[in-house]
Amino acid sequence: MSVSYSKIVSQVPAMTPFVGPETLERRRGAPFRLRMGANESAFGISPKARAAMAAELDRVSWYCDPEHYELRARLAAELGVAMDNLVVGEGIDGLLGVIVRAVTDPGDTIVTSAGAYPTFNYHVTGYGGRLEFVPYRADCHNDLPALLKAARRSGAKLLYLANPDNPSGTFLGRAAIEAALDDLPEGCLFVLDEAYAEFAPPGALAPLDGADPRLIRLRTFSKAHGMAGLRLGYGIAAEALIATFQKIRLHFGVGRLSQVAALASLDDPDFAAGVVRRVAEGRRDTEALARNHDLAFIPSLTNFVAIDLESAENSLRMVELLEARGVFVRRPGVAPLDRYVRVSVGTPEHRAEFAQVFEDALGALRNG
Amino acid sequence: MSVSYSKIVSQVPAMTPFVGPETLERRRGAPFRLRMGANESAFGISPKARAAMAAELDRVSWYCDPEHYELRARLAAELGVAMDNLVVGEGIDGLLGVIVRAVTDPGDTIVTSAGAYPTFNYHVTGYGGRLEFVPYRADCHNDLPALLKAARRSGAKLLYLANPDNPSGTFLGRAAIEAALDDLPEGCLFVLDEAYAEFAPPGALAPLDGADPRLIRLRTFSKAHGMAGLRLGYGIAAEALIATFQKIRLHFGVGRLSQVAALASLDDPDFAAGVVRRVAEGRRDTEALARNHDLAFIPSLTNFVAIDLESAENSLRMVELLEARGVFVRRPGVAPLDRYVRVSVGTPEHRAEFAQVFEDALGALRNG
Repeated sequence: MSVSYSKIVSQVPAMTPFVGPETLERRRGAPFRLRMGANESAFGISPKARAAMAAELDRVSWYCDPEHYELRARLAAELGVAMDNLVVGEGIDGLLGVIVRAVTDPGDTIVTSAGAYPTFNYHVTGYGGRLEFVPYRADCHNDLPALLKAARRSGAKLLYLANPDNPSGTFLGRAAIEAALDDLPEGCLFVLDEAYAEFAPPGALAPLDGADPRLIRLRTFSKAHGMAGLRLGYGIAAEALIATFQKIRLHFGVGRLSQVAALASLDDPDFAAGVVRRVAEGRRDTEALARNHDLAFIPSLTNFVAIDLESAENSLRMVELLEARGVFVRRPGVAPLDRYVRVSVGTPEHRAEFAQVFEDALGALRNG
Repeated sequence: MSVSYSKIVSQVPAMTPFVGPETLERRRGAPFRLRMGANESAFGISPKARAAMAAELDRVSWYCDPEHYELRARLAAELGVAMDNLVVGEGIDGLLGVIVRAVTDPGDTIVTSAGAYPTFNYHVTGYGGRLEFVPYRADCHNDLPALLKAARRSGAKLLYLANPDNPSGTFLGRAAIEAALDDLPEGCLFVLDEAYAEFAPPGALAPLDGADPRLIRLRTFSKAHGMAGLRLGYGIAAEALIATFQKIRLHFGVGRLSQVAALASLDDPDFAAGVVRRVAEGRRDTEALARNHDLAFIPSLTNFVAIDLESAENSLRMVELLEARGVFVRRPGVAPLDRYVRVSVGTPEHRAEFAQVFEDALGALRNG
């Protein structure tokens, strides 16, 4: 007796979107001293969120509200959209799966930048879609005109863009996004992953419009709110799209503590604003570190900085040298980003420790 | 511009697997005084789990281990299977979605009992499957021979059975399950939902066999461990099936606190055993309540008891009467179960309060 898999799933290759730091630690047989490879916040969570979760431990035997009513009501008020423009899911990762599933027939084309978010690609492949990749520009920005051209030519169902971008840290301003929306081919949904929205300058993002059927914008509590381990993201889109998710999403996927924590963090706007400020300081430290060693970096509007190691060989080696010294960072896998090492912003103490380890590893690389 | 949905999703009807108690509370404009409709544990979580989560709040800015390595290692040791026989997901709900997705081509038949778990049906419909329903027997047991016959006749990809069963509370012993496996048609995977496994008598469940390719068994931390709000379930199946889930599951779906709490609860076996004991006491109270009012009930091996209101009209009315008195219970929607009201086991205090409200509501029903 053998299981009879679906046509799509039987053709999906074995794949893992990310090898987590815990797996790397098991392989190397020791924990990392610095965890700066997953763009997790180094600044924790709001004390209000912490207190709210501690209090909610008394009710953790209860299921969560599958409508996420209070959180959506609060976000709607905060963002100036309707509750029916909002869907909550298990992080942006979970929502990307639902979006891909909603539109993808086997063989459909989905367009994204080469070297962009692996988990998006994982979902596309998992639902039988065909990925079409557009290279980043030489300056490590997403090439939006080329992405649009590819989408038009291929009849793409989705066009994915992270903005501010991961893993580069680059940003495309409001005018570029609005022009792209006007140029979007019929039948193609624009997936705008704004995980790092809070780190963009005020006014730099295109304004939200709940009635716009051309795009879905994705936000998360993982970055500025420091809640990566709580798995909570949300999407903002037109009512008809949200209603479609309602009939296929996992209704009880987000935990009770996560919802309570997100609400409490929204009640403490100074906290997230403080994280954004502290992250900007941290980026300046990391940039200075690069400069001090005559290395370039990509100006970033996120909680990480990509440092230019001048070749793919160097960056690969640098990740190994850092790992050997107990530091977890990541290296984007595709040119032109593959000559960089992506370093998440740590606390001042993390940064001081990282600077020492980095200098030591760089010495080994240069004397290598 | 309109979004172009996939063929499957565009044909999925609008549906909601469960209307949660929070929604009912919003509709009635007041919170429930007793929440006894979702089979949530009334006995909380292990103090060890609580302490572990409180300590882990310091690391909630970190993503979880997407391999759930420690938890799978621990469960493997506990259950006598290999780690590669285990998959962890966002509750049994999340895992059911992955299972259905793994095998279902549009139009494929999936067999389940009429009136069994709505969320399973939701996933089947959402992936374009065709549900074939087999009625419960008159004694409210799943009709396993009829389920097998339907699976064979229809060439079903999956046969779903909850055992101990929800919403009836009935149980099929080891011999019945083993006979069914031997009779399972080729190409049909047996989905054995054992959410209430801990409440079955020792030795009553079929032994676990990680090499058996005919079935997947699903367990949860939501019931005996009291962690419904943490969304953590697991599946036990042959390695090839688990490897298939690995290429389509949501890798970062389960939160960090959930994993830590589950591990800590496994370190406190007396806690879950105590819950099982206290639930058995509670069932006896609820049974006595039914008897005192000359009502029958279904003997249950779960954390709830279905009380016989003698007609579908009566049970529907009883749910309304209880809701009007601030008590949330559920009524199964399909005959022969639709004449019952399903009451989750509460604490002794809950039970005393429930007995009063029930008596009052029953008086209104009988004098109605």
